[in-house]
Order: sequence, then C-alpha cells, then structure tokens
Amino acid sequence: MSERFKSLKEYVPGEQPRDRKYIKLNTNESPFPPPQSVIDAAARETECSNLYPDPTYKDLREALASAFEVEPSNIAVANGSDEILSFAFTAFCDSATGAVFPDITYGFYEVFSALHTIPHTCIPLREDFSILPEDYKNAKGTIFIANPNAPTGLALSSDKIESILSSNRQNVVVIDEAYVDFGAESSVPLIRKYPNLIVVGTFSKSRSLAGARLGYAVASNELIKDIDKIRYSNNPYNVSRATAAAGIAALSEQRYYEENIAAIKKTRALLLEKLSSLGFFCTDSMANFVFARHPMLSGEECYRLLKENGVLVRHFSSPRTDDYVRITVGSESEINKLSETLAQILRNKNNEG
Amino acid sequence: MSERFKSLKEYVPGEQPRDRKYIKLNTNESPFPPPQSVIDAAARETECSNLYPDPTYKDLREALASAFEVEPSNIAVANGSDEILSFAFTAFCDSATGAVFPDITYGFYEVFSALHTIPHTCIPLREDFSILPEDYKNAKGTIFIANPNAPTGLALSSDKIESILSSNRQNVVVIDEAYVDFGAESSVPLIRKYPNLIVVGTFSKSRSLAGARLGYAVASNELIKDIDKIRYSNNPYNVSRATAAAGIAALSEQRYYEENIAAIKKTRALLLEKLSSLGFFCTDSMANFVFARHPMLSGEECYRLLKENGVLVRHFSSPRTDDYVRITVGSESEINKLSETLAQILRNKNNEG
Repeated sequence: MSERFKSLKEYVPGEQPRDRKYIKLNTNESPFPPPQSVIDAAARETECSNLYPDPTYKDLREALASAFEVEPSNIAVANGSDEILSFAFTAFCDSATGAVFPDITYGFYEVFSALHTIPHTCIPLREDFSILPEDYKNAKGTIFIANPNAPTGLALSSDKIESILSSNRQNVVVIDEAYVDFGAESSVPLIRKYPNLIVVGTFSKSRSLAGARLGYAVASNELIKDIDKIRYSNNPYNVSRATAAAGIAALSEQRYYEENIAAIKKTRALLLEKLSSLGFFCTDSMANFVFARHPMLSGEECYRLLKENGVLVRHFSSPRTDDYVRITVGSESEINKLSETLAQILRNKNNEG
Repeated sequence: MSERFKSLKEYVPGEQPRDRKYIKLNTNESPFPPPQSVIDAAARETECSNLYPDPTYKDLREALASAFEVEPSNIAVANGSDEILSFAFTAFCDSATGAVFPDITYGFYEVFSALHTIPHTCIPLREDFSILPEDYKNAKGTIFIANPNAPTGLALSSDKIESILSSNRQNVVVIDEAYVDFGAESSVPLIRKYPNLIVVGTFSKSRSLAGARLGYAVASNELIKDIDKIRYSNNPYNVSRATAAAGIAALSEQRYYEENIAAIKKTRALLLEKLSSLGFFCTDSMANFVFARHPMLSGEECYRLLKENGVLVRHFSSPRTDDYVRITVGSESEINKLSETLAQILRNKNNEG
C-alpha cells in the first residue's frame, strides 16, 4: 500500500449485520419498492447485457435533461452520487485548491479529501446546526454543501444558496441534493445563472433505487465536460445497462414517487411527534431521516439499546453529534415498532434510576 | 478543472455511432446473450432495489472464491475490471513507486497513470509483440501485464508469469486476465505462492455481462485489504444489487459459457483462415479478437473502409500498431459479412491500382 494511505480512514457505511432480522432505520433507504415499470425496464435491458452500455448515456441524459428542464450537455451520470462527488473532488480540488465543507456533514467529504490528498477546511455549523452563508464568503477552495445537510436534516433556502454562489464566483460550489425531494428547494434552476454551480443528485433515496446505483450532476456545460473527462479517465461504462434503463423508466413515474414522498413526510411528522412525546429533541428535518437526542440517553447508548432490541439506527461519534442518533423515516409500522422500543428503553432506564 | 488535468487524455472507448446499424466488432463483446438464469436472477434482485447492496458483497465473494478455489478474503469486487485496475493504481503506485507496463497494451494503463499522477515506464514488446519476462526483472514499480495482451492477443504461459513474479518480490504485479478464458492459462493458482500477485478478471467478455459491469481481483488477503480500503474510500456500494445477483448466477452456468467459448474459438479459427486467405498477417491470438494487418491497406484505411461499409473494427494509431486493426470474434454470420466486405475492399483497391 502506498505510504500516503497508511493512515487513510475509509468511509464506514451503515452496518448490515446478519446475526438476526433487524428493523433497518440506519441507511436512509426508501421503504417503498421501485415501481413495476422500473423493474420491467431493468429486466428487459439485462437481456442484452452481453453488450457494453452507451458510454455517453445519451438516452438517460436526455431523460434527466427533460426532467430538470436543462440540456443533455448539462448532465453527467455516475454509479451513485458518491462517484459524482469523487469525480468533483478529483476535478476541482488539488493541493493548491482545497475543499471547504461544514464540520458536521456527510462523512464522505472528509474521506474524499484524504483519498485524493486534498487539504480541507471545515467550517463549523452554528450552535443550532444551521449553515450561515456569510461563513462561506470568498471561501478558500471548492465548496461542498449537502442540502438538506446530513445528518442534521436542516435545509438552506435557494436564496441562501444563491448568496453562497454569488460570493464565490471564483470557486466551484457543489450542492449535494441527495435528500432534496423530502422538503428542500432544489438549486438546479440556478445553474443557468451560476456557471460555478454543480448540483449532485441520486436515485437512491426518493426514487427507491439505492440498490441500482445511479447518481448525476447538473451543471454548466463547461463543468460537466470536466466531470466527464474524469469519468472517461476512470470508468467510461460506469453505469450498468439495467440501471440506466431503470433510471429512464423512473423518470416517467413522477406520480408514484410523489405519493411515496407524501407518505414519507407524513410518517416523518408522526415520528417527530412520537419522539417529542418521549422527551426527545429533534432538529427540523427536511430529509427522510430525523436527528434526535434525549436528555437521559447518550447517542451511543440509544443506538446500542435499540440494536439489542432489533432496531438499527445510526450514531456518529464526533463531539458535536455524540448525543444524537439519526433515524431513517421507514414505514409507519417500523416507526411504531421503533417508538414502542424506545418507550420500553426509557421505562427500564427510569426503573434503574 | 485542476491544473494537473489540463493535458489529461481520457480513455477513448470503442465508438458506438448511431447514424446507421453497424456490425459491431470493435469492443470485444460476446455475441452470446447471458443465460436465462442470469437474466432472471438480476430481475428478481431489482425488485428490492430500494435497499442498498451489501457493501461487503459476501455472497458474491463466496461464489467467486468457490469458483477459483480460494477464500472469500482473497476476493475484491468492482464495477467492471477497469475500476479494480484504478483501485490498484491508486493503492500500489505513487510518485515514488511508478507503474511499469508494455509499450503496446491496454490503453487504460497510461490513462490511469495520468489520472493518478503516477510516473510510468513502458517496456517495449519484442519485434514480434511478445513479452520477454527478463525485461521485467527487478522492475522499478508496480507491474501491469494483460494476459493475453491487448490488442495483440498474445498470451504468456504460467511459467513466464511466474518468472516475472519471482524476480519482483518487492513489487506488486497485476495480471489483467480480461481475455484469459479464450485460450490462456490463468495465474490465479499462483496467488498462494506469490503474495505480491493480483489477478484481475471481468464478467464482460466470456461471461457475456459487459453491460452489467462486474470485475474482480484475486490476491493475497493483505493486498485485497488494501484494494478494499480504496474501494470503501471511493464507493462502498460499487456493484449494483442486480449485477451482484447476475454474477452469482453466472458462476453456476459454467457449461453454458464453456460452450460459448468453444464456439468463439471455432469462429476465431475461421476468421484467421479467411483473413489469411485474403492476404492478412495475424498474430496468434488467444483472445476473442484478432490483430491483423494487410500489406495493401493501412490500419486506418482498413478501419475506415470497413466503417463505410457498415462494419466497425478498432484501430490504434500509435507507431507500432498503426498498420493493424483489431477485430472482435463476433458470430459466424458477422465474421462472414466482415470477410466478404474485406474481399470487396481489396478488389476495389486492386482495380484502382
């Protein structure tokens, strides 16, 4: 192994233990399966899997362009949005131009910085976990902001994103919209005005295709050309035929997804209500997860006791997130089981005390 | 775009023009579709594509380990073998430890060197395009050898691979076996003896899954850990659920693939015979392509005239390969059409002259 990676800390995805059957609320998947038309499109395409995909992904980019009301030359596609992010770190950062992102955000930004040996600057979120656009004014490097942010779930309005863009015309600004469909405003319309903006999206969350691996970037033609140059230098056939076909079919199922999103928002409200009545504090999440802490339970303890009782949630053990757990908004029955389990954990805790 | 990539030349995959229907003999795909069991397994798995894949790919690695008679800890999987190669360049090369590969070989090795800013040394093939193991003795860096080599199709015996391995115990040696099933000896059994060996394979060629994107590495546990550290730092869910399921199903269809391989070898013999009778010189290919030149046609002219007549082959315009075209061994009817077209081209050429 090259010396430069001896201390590399890889990304740790949410656990998938196999010792028993768990209620899995730890990786922000959709509780809804893909629609039948998407399954059928993928299956049909698999029949000709002896042939490589079209490395330009013309049909998929056209379908995405039509959905976002941009040109196909404004779109690049990838094997999940993590790959698009990795391409962006490669293309737009180096030893002279570092990466700039919040101290609490998607953990992969720090991993990509280490992987590509890029210096990075963490800008602390405010005490209430909010992002203040002024903190990013004339930032020293390429900016990466998840909107809504993870694991806080807090969203920035388009106005605030625009103020970051307009005060960083010399920097590329990447807005990672993995969770945007659950209540935040998309910055896609801003690409016309800001040639320094890259919006990154995924089919893994609202579109129920985490297992198919499909992500994309929307940006000015110039930035897309740069991303595509890195894509062609890495893996020109980076999206499988079946996944490209699934993506195209998914873009015709807007209504199915809108209904699922409405259901997830309703379950999120229910979850927040239940957590609140159990004494939890929760951030105002615009994502398909909530970020919650309880005065009587550390984040680690909450995570561990839930796991012992067959429910997986996520705990991030950095100083500012240590008190919290991140809970995916699963199905209504999963959320009911979670809150019953939490109620029991808190009763036991009270009896001990 | 970062300054360091201003002169990056990305990999150029085989063209897929859409202006008309072509006989496509330019990307070394299998003319045979995947078996029905593979299509069905992928389709079934797509139904639960709302969930992420298992990032350890336990079942797939177990199936591969069983097929290769190694342990699952000797296997890493990726989104095509290009991704495994990119991980190997990342993990085992840096500014101090360069990459070493033949002057004529898979064009991506040079692209990966540039992408990861790694110095590289090209060792010229002998006049007859063969690789002489002595040329690699105590090489200065990580060695990448395609066996059979591309685009020459020439294979090295296991003995010769072993002599490269034994004279490079201080170096990682990557043997890229994309085309091994069409007549070369696999080096997989050597991983027990040589902890410095990584064998890279793909499901894109003999296993008819170019469109599904599945590659793998077989190596000592130590080297696999390094590759997996890079994989987790890049994209822990790099293989889609459907593709992982297709891969597992494919490993149970050995007989189907053996019949296809036998058919491709038979068609290769037919193609070599036809080309020879038309006056072509061909290398002794052990791959699913042939590498051919004609005294009356430059490689570029041959490529261009075939394309004008609806047949796509590949031409590589470097000084030593300029006279040649690489022709995929397609179906028998495609090969008949190709040779009729070539015969006509040569007749026209004679009439002009």
